[in-house]
Amino acid sequence: MGDDCAVLAPFVGEALISTDVAVWGVHLDPEFFPLEDLGFKAVAAAVSDIAAMGGRVRACVVAVTSPPGTDLEELHRGIADAAAMTGCPVVGGDLARASDVCVAVTVLGECPGGGAVRRSGARAGDEILVTGPLGRAAAGLRRRREGASLSDELVVAHRRPWPRLAEGQAARGAGVHAMMDLSDGIGLDLHRLADASGVGFELSTLPVADGATLEEALGGGEDYELVMTTDDPGRLRMLFVDRGLATPLSIGHVVADPSVRTLGAHPLARQGYQHEL
Amino acid sequence: MGDDCAVLAPFVGEALISTDVAVWGVHLDPEFFPLEDLGFKAVAAAVSDIAAMGGRVRACVVAVTSPPGTDLEELHRGIADAAAMTGCPVVGGDLARASDVCVAVTVLGECPGGGAVRRSGARAGDEILVTGPLGRAAAGLRRRREGASLSDELVVAHRRPWPRLAEGQAARGAGVHAMMDLSDGIGLDLHRLADASGVGFELSTLPVADGATLEEALGGGEDYELVMTTDDPGRLRMLFVDRGLATPLSIGHVVADPSVRTLGAHPLARQGYQHEL
Repeated sequence: MGDDCAVLAPFVGEALISTDVAVWGVHLDPEFFPLEDLGFKAVAAAVSDIAAMGGRVRACVVAVTSPPGTDLEELHRGIADAAAMTGCPVVGGDLARASDVCVAVTVLGECPGGGAVRRSGARAGDEILVTGPLGRAAAGLRRRREGASLSDELVVAHRRPWPRLAEGQAARGAGVHAMMDLSDGIGLDLHRLADASGVGFELSTLPVADGATLEEALGGGEDYELVMTTDDPGRLRMLFVDRGLATPLSIGHVVADPSVRTLGAHPLARQGYQHEL
Repeated sequence: MGDDCAVLAPFVGEALISTDVAVWGVHLDPEFFPLEDLGFKAVAAAVSDIAAMGGRVRACVVAVTSPPGTDLEELHRGIADAAAMTGCPVVGGDLARASDVCVAVTVLGECPGGGAVRRSGARAGDEILVTGPLGRAAAGLRRRREGASLSDELVVAHRRPWPRLAEGQAARGAGVHAMMDLSDGIGLDLHRLADASGVGFELSTLPVADGATLEEALGGGEDYELVMTTDDPGRLRMLFVDRGLATPLSIGHVVADPSVRTLGAHPLARQGYQHEL
């Protein structure tokens, strides 16, 4: 890099910024996964936050701490892979010695024309949709622990989560009212969206990914699928089809009463991954 | 926060981004300093990178790792102090469990009108100036280890370094050719500036801060004074005076031969703080 800062050409519209830190042994189990996956997942998680606002990525910076003897080349390979695949160049960084390998990724994005989609805009009557079936990453973690290879399809879904950038931008274009990524599982994140919007929800169905359990679909997280609410689901589906994206799946609708939070006939309790501190 | 990202109003001109990570026990000694100083210094170091380009700050995000039982309130107090004093609001963050307390700060800034000052622009014949006497922070660390109180003036210079934001913007306005902050000491950083510019330097003098030694002034770092090169030092001084800033101190000039690196009659060897990894 050379200079103290990276200099970026002027932004188009609103600027988005998000930071995520991933810790080796906390966010990823060294017994079952290579170090490069930590780098990949750290970048993917931060990029997904931009996707969840309907933004496009501009660049990221990466701060790494590591104990002596860490294979930083391997870590950087994962970071570089994710950066290349999401079109999010690493423009700066810092490195320090510590007991743990920690990767803090800060991503910058932009919303041309403004209108970043927040999680607080859901309205009673909105249809609730997700960008794909849920639970793949959690199922992959379980399968890996049971002995599946690193190249098993679900294990790859855990190792190499794909931020839904194109889907997020299409959803913003379609004027969805609220959106967020399901980084901690829909059983937790949909409650957060409903809390922020002051509404409830009635889910009729949950699309469970092949090979995953209902619990993994509810609480798994790290799929980075997006959940969206809109009063014009036809327009949303059309825009996704136009852009060659998988048709979003309807799972229920928003209700005015914030105390109503159901899946089928039953209340949906808060569940999902929350980091212990 | 609530949302996945912070949304910032459009930037004016070029955007600047820099990230710095500070580790408790590496960047600051827990035996001699309170945890809040780690937070303050982490923010100040990142903000100083914006100052060194001549930019103004817009916002920062902070990723923290910590072991259970860490007094996060105290850490956040230091972060909030530095954010308030430098006018750089914390707009987002992340938190994870790890063995060490690490604070990764990413600062965003902007250069209205463009023209961020790089370290690579120094030209033969330029005068070299610094924004103030050097070695205060290093002297403060020594004095603290010798038993001085936390409120000792030099100890405070170590605990609460002040990024030279106003000075950096004045220097950019004056059209300096090259600039950087002396985070690792002029004995190392001026070599970096000369390397990036493909030039040498002849220093006639070094302004040593009251209470500091020549070695502390050369190698101490963390003063966050700025070093600048310009072919119009009169204009630079005038602009600093106009804005009520301390007059920059001339220390020598740039020469064309990159192998010439002298202080007085002697070669100036590379020295200063480099983190071990």
